[in-house]
Amino acid sequence: MIKVTVWNEFEHEKTDENAKAVYPDGIHSYIAGFLKSDDITVRTATLDMPEHGLTDEVLADTDVLIWWGHMAHEKVSDEVVSKVYECVLKGMGLIVLHSGHHSKPFKKLMGTTCNLSWRDGDRERIWCCNPAHPIAQGVPLQFELPQEEMYGEFFDIPKPDDIIYLGWFRGGEVFRSGCTFTRGYGKIFYFQPGHETHPTYHNENVQRIIKNAVNWAKPGYKLDKLDCPHAKIPLETNI
Amino acid sequence: MIKVTVWNEFEHEKTDENAKAVYPDGIHSYIAGFLKSDDITVRTATLDMPEHGLTDEVLADTDVLIWWGHMAHEKVSDEVVSKVYECVLKGMGLIVLHSGHHSKPFKKLMGTTCNLSWRDGDRERIWCCNPAHPIAQGVPLQFELPQEEMYGEFFDIPKPDDIIYLGWFRGGEVFRSGCTFTRGYGKIFYFQPGHETHPTYHNENVQRIIKNAVNWAKPGYKLDKLDCPHAKIPLETNI
Amino acid sequence: MIKVTVWNEFEHEKTDENAKAVYPDGIHSYIAGFLKSDDITVRTATLDMPEHGLTDEVLADTDVLIWWGHMAHEKVSDEVVSKVYECVLKGMGLIVLHSGHHSKPFKKLMGTTCNLSWRDGDRERIWCCNPAHPIAQGVPLQFELPQEEMYGEFFDIPKPDDIIYLGWFRGGEVFRSGCTFTRGYGKIFYFQPGHETHPTYHNENVQRIIKNAVNWAKPGYKLDKLDCPHAKIPLETNI
Amino acid sequence: MIKVTVWNEFEHEKTDENAKAVYPDGIHSYIAGFLKSDDITVRTATLDMPEHGLTDEVLADTDVLIWWGHMAHEKVSDEVVSKVYECVLKGMGLIVLHSGHHSKPFKKLMGTTCNLSWRDGDRERIWCCNPAHPIAQGVPLQFELPQEEMYGEFFDIPKPDDIIYLGWFRGGEVFRSGCTFTRGYGKIFYFQPGHETHPTYHNENVQRIIKNAVNWAKPGYKLDKLDCPHAKIPLETNI
Repeated sequence: MIKVTVWNEFEHEKTDENAKAVYPDGIHSYIAGFLKSDDITVRTATLDMPEHGLTDEVLADTDVLIWWGHMAHEKVSDEVVSKVYECVLKGMGLIVLHSGHHSKPFKKLMGTTCNLSWRDGDRERIWCCNPAHPIAQGVPLQFELPQEEMYGEFFDIPKPDDIIYLGWFRGGEVFRSGCTFTRGYGKIFYFQPGHETHPTYHNENVQRIIKNAVNWAKPGYKLDKLDCPHAKIPLETNI
Repeated sequence: MIKVTVWNEFEHEKTDENAKAVYPDGIHSYIAGFLKSDDITVRTATLDMPEHGLTDEVLADTDVLIWWGHMAHEKVSDEVVSKVYECVLKGMGLIVLHSGHHSKPFKKLMGTTCNLSWRDGDRERIWCCNPAHPIAQGVPLQFELPQEEMYGEFFDIPKPDDIIYLGWFRGGEVFRSGCTFTRGYGKIFYFQPGHETHPTYHNENVQRIIKNAVNWAKPGYKLDKLDCPHAKIPLETNI
Repeated sequence: MIKVTVWNEFEHEKTDENAKAVYPDGIHSYIAGFLKSDDITVRTATLDMPEHGLTDEVLADTDVLIWWGHMAHEKVSDEVVSKVYECVLKGMGLIVLHSGHHSKPFKKLMGTTCNLSWRDGDRERIWCCNPAHPIAQGVPLQFELPQEEMYGEFFDIPKPDDIIYLGWFRGGEVFRSGCTFTRGYGKIFYFQPGHETHPTYHNENVQRIIKNAVNWAKPGYKLDKLDCPHAKIPLETNI
Repeated sequence: MIKVTVWNEFEHEKTDENAKAVYPDGIHSYIAGFLKSDDITVRTATLDMPEHGLTDEVLADTDVLIWWGHMAHEKVSDEVVSKVYECVLKGMGLIVLHSGHHSKPFKKLMGTTCNLSWRDGDRERIWCCNPAHPIAQGVPLQFELPQEEMYGEFFDIPKPDDIIYLGWFRGGEVFRSGCTFTRGYGKIFYFQPGHETHPTYHNENVQRIIKNAVNWAKPGYKLDKLDCPHAKIPLETNI
C-alpha cells in the first residue's frame, strides 16, 4: 500500500471561474480521486491548513508527495519547505506538477532557477522518448492535449536522470515535459502539463502517467536522519 | 591545427537534380568549404575511392571524421567500418550527420537500431536545451530551417551524454536533434538536420554548430592500441 | 510471474576442480536455485545445447536473461547473439555477470571493447553509491567478498545510466562494479563479482542484488518488431 | 585569457602549525601560484576581506571561481552566497575543492546535503574512469597521494554529469573524487583531494587537473540576467 499526499495551494479554484468549472473541489481532490485504489491510499493537504497540512505526522506517513502550486509559492513557509526537502532526501518520493516548477521545494532540490519560457493558450503533444521507463508503461508513444499552457526551453534545470516525455507545442516550442531526478534517497518526477483552467488531469494518459510515477517514486528505504559520519576506524585493519 | 576528414557517400548529388542543385560538388565539398580555416585543415573522402578514401594513413591522420551517408550504407565495407570503429574508440572524434543515423559505424558504436520516425517535407525549429555546452556557443537559442526532413521520436539510441538540441517539426513531431556520446576515448556528435535536397548546410547556425562540434570532438589523447591488461602485480605490495 | 533464463557457457565447472568444488552443477544451476520463488520461474541454458539452449521459443518466453561466460565467448554463434541482441532491444531484460563483460551480446549492445584491467586473487569491498536505486534495496551500503577477481578501471563502457556499485580491491584498484544501461526497450545490468572459483554467488548480498536486478529488468512492454516507420501523414493537418 | 579568483577561508593556515608548514601563505596563494600563466590571470579572496573579497566587481570580472573552505562555512554571509550562486547560473565556472563539499554555495547548487563518510590519515589512489574528458588530459590513469583525508561513499550529491575520478583509500573506502555538474549556464567541478595539512596541491597531477578544470569551466557565454520570459507571441503565426 502506497501512502500518497496530494498538496495543492488551492487558490485558483476558489476565485477563477474557469478553474472552478474544471476542478470544482480543487485540483488536489480531483487527483486524489483518480489515484485512490487498492494499492494507493490518498490524503490531501492545502495551503490554508495549519502547517499547510504538512505536519511532521503527515510527512512521516507519506510515501509520495504530489505538489501543485502557482500563485501562492511565496506564501509557503520556509519551515515547511525545509521539512519537505529533508523528507525527500530521506526517501520520500516527490511529484511536482506544472507550475510547481517554481515552487520552493522544487527549486531547493534542483539548485537552479527552474525558469522557462511560457505562454497560455496552446495545444500540446506529449512524445515519449524513453519507452522502457516504468513511468511510460501503458501510455501511447504520443498523445494530444487540446488545451495546455506552453512551457518552452530553455528550462533551467540540472540534467535530469531520465527524460521521459518531450512536449511539442503548436505555437512552435518544445519542452522536456517529463523528467526524473534523484536527490539523496528520494525520487522526483516533474511533469509539465496541468494548467488550472484546462481539463488536463481528466485525460486518461495523464492519469496513467501520474499513477505510474507514484509507483516509481515510492521509497525503497527511508533514512532516519541525514548525517555525515566520522568513520573513526578503518575497515582494513593493517592500514 | 585540427585535421578533419569529411566522408560522404556522394550518391544523391550525382543522380538527383534537387540534390545536385543544392550541392553541385557534393555535400562533402560544401562542408569542407565552410570548415577550412586557420585552425582546421580538411580533406574529403567518398565511397567510390579505394577503401572509400579511408585508408590507414588517412584515418591515422584524422582528428575528427564527419560522416554523411544514406542510400549506400550497405555498400560501405565492413573492414572500413571496423577501422573507423576502432579509431573512434582510440580517440578520433566522429560527427554523424542526418541520415548517417543508420550508417554502419554509428549503429556499431551505439549498440542499437538507431531507428526513428521520418517524413520528408517539413519545417523545423532547432531549440537549445543545453546552452552551457561548447557545441552551442554563438548559436541562438532557437532558429528555423524552412525545409527539412522530419525525424521524430522514438529515436532508438542509448541515453546521450548530453542532449544539446531538440527539434520541433511543423507536422507535430519532436526529436533529440543534437546529441553527444563518448565511446572509449572518442567523442561523438549526432546532428539531425541535413537532408540532401535542402540547403541546410548553407545555414550559418548549422555551420557554427558543426564547427563547434569539430573543436569539441578533437581528441585530447589517442590510444595506440585497445587492450585488456593483465595487472599481474598488485599496486599495494602487502596484499 | 517473471520468467528468467540463466545462460552459462558451463565449461570451467566441468574441467576445473576449483570451479567444480564451488559450483558442482554449474553456475547456472546455482543461480537458478536461489532465484526460484513464488514470483520467479527459472530455466537454464548452456553452450552445448542446440542453439545454445536459446531457441526462438525460449527467448520469446524469457523476461530476463542472465549471462555467464568466459573462456568460450567465441564459441557462441553469431546467429544466437543476433537473436539475443534483438530480444533485448525489443524489451527483454539482460543481466551480465562478471567475465560476461567480454561476451558477444554485451559488447554488441555497448558498442565498445568492454576492456578492463584484471588480476585474480584479491579481496573486494562493494560500495553502494546509489542507495535509492531499486537494485540496492535491502543490501548493506557496503559488504566484503573475501575472494574475488580484481576488475579495475579503465572499464571501456559507455556512460552507464546509473552506477549503483563501486568495487574496492585490496590490491589498490577501483571499478564501476554495478552499472545499468538501457538499449531500445531493454534494461541491462552488469555486475562484476562472480569468478568461477570463488563462492561469490553463495553470498546473500550478491543474491539479493541479482534478485533485485531481475525485478528491475523485467520488461514493461515488449515490441513485436524493430522498425523505422515512415510517417506519411503529418499529425497536424494544416502543415 | 581566463580570469580566475581563488577563494579560501584562510583559517587553518593561520592557527594550525601543520597547515602553516605546508601552505605558509595560505592554500589560495599556493593555488594562485601554480595557476598563473600566459593564459590565466589569478586574484585571491579570503573570508576576512570586506564582502569576503567577492564584491560585485570581482565576481563580474571572474570567469572561474575556485573555492576552499572547511571550518568557517557558517561564517560566509548568505548575501555573498546568493551572489556566487547567481553568477554560476549566469555562466561563471566553479571549482569546489575538498571540504568545500559542505560549503554553502556548493550545497545550494547541488540541492542535497553533500554528506559523506570521512576519516583523516589515509593513503589515496586516484583512478580515471573517463579518460576522454578534457579535465583528464595529460594526467596518468592512476596516481597516488601518500597522505590524504579519506572521503567515502555514500556521497549525497545529485548524479554528476560526468564522473572523471574515483578515489581508492587504503583503509577500505571508495569515493567519486572528481565530478562535474552543470547548473544554468555554469560548469562546476568538484575535486576531493586537498586536506589542509597535506601537500596535495604540491602534486603535479593535482595541479594539472585543476588547470584543466579551469579551462573546461570557463564560460562560453554569460547571461545578463536570470528570467522566466513570457513568450506573448507564438513563433508560428497560424496557431
